[in-house]
Amino acid sequence: MTSSPAPLDLTADPAELTAALVDIESVSGDEAAIADAVQAALWAQAPHLEVIRDGDAVLARTNLGRDSRAVLAGHLDTVPVNENLPLRRTGSADSADGEVLHGLGTVDMKGGVAVFLHLAATLPRPRHDVTFVFYDCEEVEAARNGLGRIERTLPEWLRGELAIVGEPSNAAIEAGCQGTMRVELRCTGTRAHTARGWMGVNAIHALGEPLARLASYQARVVDIDGLTYREGLQAVGIGGGVAGNVVPDEAVLSVNHRFAPDRSAADAEAHLREVFDGYELSVVDSSPGALPGLGAPAAAELVAAAGGKAAAKLGWTDVSRFAALGMPAVNLGPGDPTLAHTRQEHVRADEIRAVAETLRTFLR
Amino acid sequence: MTSSPAPLDLTADPAELTAALVDIESVSGDEAAIADAVQAALWAQAPHLEVIRDGDAVLARTNLGRDSRAVLAGHLDTVPVNENLPLRRTGSADSADGEVLHGLGTVDMKGGVAVFLHLAATLPRPRHDVTFVFYDCEEVEAARNGLGRIERTLPEWLRGELAIVGEPSNAAIEAGCQGTMRVELRCTGTRAHTARGWMGVNAIHALGEPLARLASYQARVVDIDGLTYREGLQAVGIGGGVAGNVVPDEAVLSVNHRFAPDRSAADAEAHLREVFDGYELSVVDSSPGALPGLGAPAAAELVAAAGGKAAAKLGWTDVSRFAALGMPAVNLGPGDPTLAHTRQEHVRADEIRAVAETLRTFLR
Repeated sequence: MTSSPAPLDLTADPAELTAALVDIESVSGDEAAIADAVQAALWAQAPHLEVIRDGDAVLARTNLGRDSRAVLAGHLDTVPVNENLPLRRTGSADSADGEVLHGLGTVDMKGGVAVFLHLAATLPRPRHDVTFVFYDCEEVEAARNGLGRIERTLPEWLRGELAIVGEPSNAAIEAGCQGTMRVELRCTGTRAHTARGWMGVNAIHALGEPLARLASYQARVVDIDGLTYREGLQAVGIGGGVAGNVVPDEAVLSVNHRFAPDRSAADAEAHLREVFDGYELSVVDSSPGALPGLGAPAAAELVAAAGGKAAAKLGWTDVSRFAALGMPAVNLGPGDPTLAHTRQEHVRADEIRAVAETLRTFLR
Repeated sequence: MTSSPAPLDLTADPAELTAALVDIESVSGDEAAIADAVQAALWAQAPHLEVIRDGDAVLARTNLGRDSRAVLAGHLDTVPVNENLPLRRTGSADSADGEVLHGLGTVDMKGGVAVFLHLAATLPRPRHDVTFVFYDCEEVEAARNGLGRIERTLPEWLRGELAIVGEPSNAAIEAGCQGTMRVELRCTGTRAHTARGWMGVNAIHALGEPLARLASYQARVVDIDGLTYREGLQAVGIGGGVAGNVVPDEAVLSVNHRFAPDRSAADAEAHLREVFDGYELSVVDSSPGALPGLGAPAAAELVAAAGGKAAAKLGWTDVSRFAALGMPAVNLGPGDPTLAHTRQEHVRADEIRAVAETLRTFLR
């Protein structure tokens, strides 16, 4: 919002820190200002940390020689502005709904980033060594993702016994994540002039049957480690047509499958080939899920610090990047994830403070 | 193909004249060269005609005071070149398949234009007064159609007791034409993230049912004046989708209906609303059909000249513009209409000569 924002105060209320971060506009690809502010604040207020800069990511860590290390990761970028900046406040600590912060990034995910920054500055000697990863370009195509870049160029900065990604989770631990796969189903036919339609074979008409299978599909509900994963199979795109007077010879249906982490991507593909038996199917993209891994010691400690409760994460998040590195990984952040990417994004201040308390209990 | 083509010889074999016209490239919007050649040839070789130029259309007529007038109309333009220029010849008068002309416009419709030009020059005192209309931009959007422009600016040049449009009809009379209507069927739903697909309603899934109705649709076959019209209902476009991870809230199916000329456009619309009962439908465009009108005296004479045979025209052509003016109108031209707009366009030379003979018998 301004080229030289006021310095961030990492030691103050993390809800106030969230507000300050929201007012530094940081749409994906334009994170220099917020990264500068984060880097400057860590240098000034967390001298016990090793801090480095990588592009518009800022990395910081303790080097205390603890037996285990937790990696706390949060992205600095947001989706595009949608008439939801600057920050707006409603309510107060005394009102029924409490104090609420409204605006772009309040949920996704400057609340989580604020909590991590607050802990970075105020817990100089945590029980586990901690690595903080504040990164860029999470909200755009996977190839630009800052965490992916760090994995390629600074892999040792992502290693640890537990990863905590600060994506909104209603301040509760959401473990693992579902996999996602997109496939294209292609029907072919024979082109003809519509004035002599019987000389052709209409590829769009042929999509009726796979659409009927989609409409009647019964998604699995899977229990893993006491967590409930609910799968899904949804058409996300459809296209076909040559001209207004031509029987089309090709039509394509694009389908997104969300699958519980008890299935590998190969399992999921085999399942889709069974559902759409008889049709030409090609996999467009695919990201494996992540098992919750709550049996690992550091993860169990975190669940205990959160009062023993954890739920299944349904959306795909960067936790699966850590899961792929063999680490237990959870989402834990303030805010309702269904508000992410909406103009109405807002978060309760007390949820931000609650996440900070949970993590303080875990790390203290 | 060249900026100053050789002068056209209108009195020679109309198949040779077709070949000369094919080699004057005339993609829609670029008809100046062919219009210049046609105009110059008519001035030089048909001094008995009144000739005028309108844009890249050339109009010519006899003014003999006959009781009736025939309007012979053909478009000068072609669809874009598709590796099918210059003209290529195969066979000969003695070979099994006869002499064949290959190339862009041989079918659609320089054969018909050549026949009309040949008659214009070689029948100075026809039995009916004759108006020749050689026009531009038939192969593009209706708003640019040269015949439409003439209808607005020079309407008296289209008046008569019978219209003959030289579109390819395998050298046989094809009478009337079917109507055509395009409608859009829209399904709506509720947007949601695919990770929580059950919170949304998928608009693409909803298209399965209308597609099933299309696939099982039984088209009417209608007999009018002894001619058989075969209707059709074909999806010509389908679209929907917001993003690869979003349950889409809108999907649209575009459908083209071809209807026999016993139904008005209003009848056809009512029929489609019945077929797709329960769905939101909007008419995108609509052109009425044309009844064959073969009972009219001049039309009956033409059928007799063609040996008494006529068939139903299934495609929509500019005959319906004349039908809308209250004139009987038929298609009569050399070439197989299913080859139109293909790279393999070709026509038998003897079919061109046969159409010239039929029309000579009618007009002599």
